[in-house]
Amino acid sequence: MKNNKRPLIFVSNDDGYYAKGLDTLIKVVSKYGDVIAVAPESARSGMSHAITIKEPLRIKKLRDEPGIKLYKCNGTPVDCVKLGLNKVVPRKPDIMVSGINHGSNASISVIYSGTMGAAIEACLNGVTSIGFSLLDHSPDADFTATAEYVEKVFKFVLEKGLPEYTTLNVNVPKIAPSEIKGMMVCRQTHGIWKEEFEKRTDPHNHDYFWLTGSFNNFEPNAKDTDEWALANNYVAIVPIKADFTAYHALEHISDLNTEL
Amino acid sequence: MKNNKRPLIFVSNDDGYYAKGLDTLIKVVSKYGDVIAVAPESARSGMSHAITIKEPLRIKKLRDEPGIKLYKCNGTPVDCVKLGLNKVVPRKPDIMVSGINHGSNASISVIYSGTMGAAIEACLNGVTSIGFSLLDHSPDADFTATAEYVEKVFKFVLEKGLPEYTTLNVNVPKIAPSEIKGMMVCRQTHGIWKEEFEKRTDPHNHDYFWLTGSFNNFEPNAKDTDEWALANNYVAIVPIKADFTAYHALEHISDLNTEL
Repeated sequence: MKNNKRPLIFVSNDDGYYAKGLDTLIKVVSKYGDVIAVAPESARSGMSHAITIKEPLRIKKLRDEPGIKLYKCNGTPVDCVKLGLNKVVPRKPDIMVSGINHGSNASISVIYSGTMGAAIEACLNGVTSIGFSLLDHSPDADFTATAEYVEKVFKFVLEKGLPEYTTLNVNVPKIAPSEIKGMMVCRQTHGIWKEEFEKRTDPHNHDYFWLTGSFNNFEPNAKDTDEWALANNYVAIVPIKADFTAYHALEHISDLNTEL
Repeated sequence: MKNNKRPLIFVSNDDGYYAKGLDTLIKVVSKYGDVIAVAPESARSGMSHAITIKEPLRIKKLRDEPGIKLYKCNGTPVDCVKLGLNKVVPRKPDIMVSGINHGSNASISVIYSGTMGAAIEACLNGVTSIGFSLLDHSPDADFTATAEYVEKVFKFVLEKGLPEYTTLNVNVPKIAPSEIKGMMVCRQTHGIWKEEFEKRTDPHNHDYFWLTGSFNNFEPNAKDTDEWALANNYVAIVPIKADFTAYHALEHISDLNTEL
């Protein structure tokens, strides 16, 4: 909105430049400004906040239409954001959106998520950002209802901003649009992924393992969490920050202080 | 200490199974119990909390001595922890240690760090854990002073434990042992890595970029931070948790609640 210009909107994801979720997100936000998207050249789910140190990064423009530019990059989602904000955009974007992820990033999934890694990286760089996810892993997922809520949250943040160095983790339940009850601001559920690992043996008689697992919700009855919101047909909105300090634990370990 | 058995100590890192920091860590902690280490087969710095979804994981035993077993794994640091805790250890370890990382993981580096990814993954699995780092990237770094403080912190945590789902991010300054003033419990400094990217052109006339950057400390005068501790010759100890919720921001976005 600065200088009466159209807002500059930076977009990324972790499912790759060709993902339906990214395409949906670009369609929604491009109504409100000029879009520059930099997305991974292949699916990079589970990449968290990983960066590429030992390989060079490459970037290639794939779309150049009025109001929409799309690039692919060989790096992680966070690399896409770093390279995009540093080498691609003509000025600091007014807002950044990540996703729409194919699959949930609620609860502890936020820590493994490349979609949220990208959103957090943008906000670390002082760009207001939002990560969006739909609880449907299918490449062909139906984003109709999600698009409606993406637009609502996007408009709110574009107008009102967010507290400094905060991003939003927005997850949409996989239900019919008419069943969604509304949006709920909540906190990250305390839970973990319990791994099982599927063991197989290759034709050369060597064992290998596939990562599998299931989500364990440690507080299924708490009603202020993202998992509760999603299970009860609400869009879950969690404000997220990148300060890992466990302030409540400072006292417990204070005996480690020496000679101060 | 359970059942008067020697403690079972799980070890991982992100610099690879051959790193001097891992070797130092194993030497220190193996005095206190039986060590099982699962470490990446190659350097995986900057891998954050990434997991491997689309490739199978493989693991191979490299050392099998009384009290010390060492395995290499083709996955990320977090994969090493998941696979190790699920398929390698005979029982739940009493404690997990990660590192010693060659290079700082203070301030926002915690979010990019594979060393801290591994430590956080262990604590998510209910295993008390600590991540250790020395502010020296050299493969041949001198870990003499670090080993002394690793032992102090390790003994404290082995005896007293940590609050549930909390890990420690311990960083040691790169100075002579005699110059270290002591240990300081502190919080994560608010700061970011500012990227610069070095642009080059390959022999086929295509551009590529190397990620480079420098750390920007947003609060250089705050005296309760890890960066202050390190700059003032203290070992910095930050308690870390995996709840990303920005509780202070819940109110700001409460207008997003609908129809509750």
